[in-house]
Amino acid sequence: METPVSLHPYLDSGLPKGSTSFSGGTLVCDCKDRPVKVRVNSGIAHNHACGCTKCWKPAGATFSIVAVTPHENVTVLENGDKLHIVDPTALIRRHACQECGVHMYGPVEREHAFQGLDFIHPERFEETGWPEPTFAAFVSSIIEAGVDPSKMNSVRNHLRQIGLEPYDCLSPELMDYIATWTAKKSGVLAQ
Amino acid sequence: METPVSLHPYLDSGLPKGSTSFSGGTLVCDCKDRPVKVRVNSGIAHNHACGCTKCWKPAGATFSIVAVTPHENVTVLENGDKLHIVDPTALIRRHACQECGVHMYGPVEREHAFQGLDFIHPERFEETGWPEPTFAAFVSSIIEAGVDPSKMNSVRNHLRQIGLEPYDCLSPELMDYIATWTAKKSGVLAQ
Repeated sequence: METPVSLHPYLDSGLPKGSTSFSGGTLVCDCKDRPVKVRVNSGIAHNHACGCTKCWKPAGATFSIVAVTPHENVTVLENGDKLHIVDPTALIRRHACQECGVHMYGPVEREHAFQGLDFIHPERFEETGWPEPTFAAFVSSIIEAGVDPSKMNSVRNHLRQIGLEPYDCLSPELMDYIATWTAKKSGVLAQ
Repeated sequence: METPVSLHPYLDSGLPKGSTSFSGGTLVCDCKDRPVKVRVNSGIAHNHACGCTKCWKPAGATFSIVAVTPHENVTVLENGDKLHIVDPTALIRRHACQECGVHMYGPVEREHAFQGLDFIHPERFEETGWPEPTFAAFVSSIIEAGVDPSKMNSVRNHLRQIGLEPYDCLSPELMDYIATWTAKKSGVLAQ
């Protein structure tokens, strides 16, 4: 029997359910010494598994777990001097700990449907109970990180089995949201 | 009852089946006078409905019908002087009739997973029997052309009802193909 591809330590044996009433918490990086701490003073939305090659993921994981929260509710609490921006030209300005590599928050600052939102990795919350991922995005992109293309059927089946519909871009809901923003900006749809 | 969105005159009342043994034909533009004619000397592949805003579609259609064929099998037969390239900077160099606007063929010339293929619209074949579309791509993009976002559920349901699974990018098969090409080019996967 072929070795299955590990999705993510939190997902491989089924999806732990969280709560939509989760109201925030503290994200902590992986450093034993002087960990970076970031406060999120609100709930999170659109939590999903992401197969893109840019999102931070723990060792051995093929997918990240990533959600958004309004930037205004995100505050660096401790050791912010350890943060750097991974790629200043990227849409998502991922702020990572330079020592352990964990991405702590990634604001979208430029004009975009997601402007004003920060991408965060809920698994870094000290607290439990954050709402679970509800879909898988950018699934085909895991090939770009080295996953054998012949394993894609089993990866997509595994995602479906744990309740995460696989998409090779974002979910239809978010893709429609982006298209609507674009259509309003271009004047094709009324503001 | 709300007015349903027309997908395409060829699709609205169900999907006419074609044949995978179709071996080519002649594409003809919409001009009565001096129509452009383009010979395709091979079968076509990956025929699909496309919701992007760049593909040519007949009046009233929300989706185009578009497929690929190797560039080496495409020859302009008549009235090629009427052709111009819609957007020379686009990946697909769509060659359109300047008079009627129909896109006749669109080669991918730059280094890309689709290099060497021409995008063509099978509904322009004089001949019948071309293989039918098998999925719908860039569905959310129809919003950018002005479709009311509240109609997206009914559009996706209609597509599924006629056997075209809707995707907001390309199909998983093609997305995996592109990702594999990218991974080989970057050296992540062996050539």
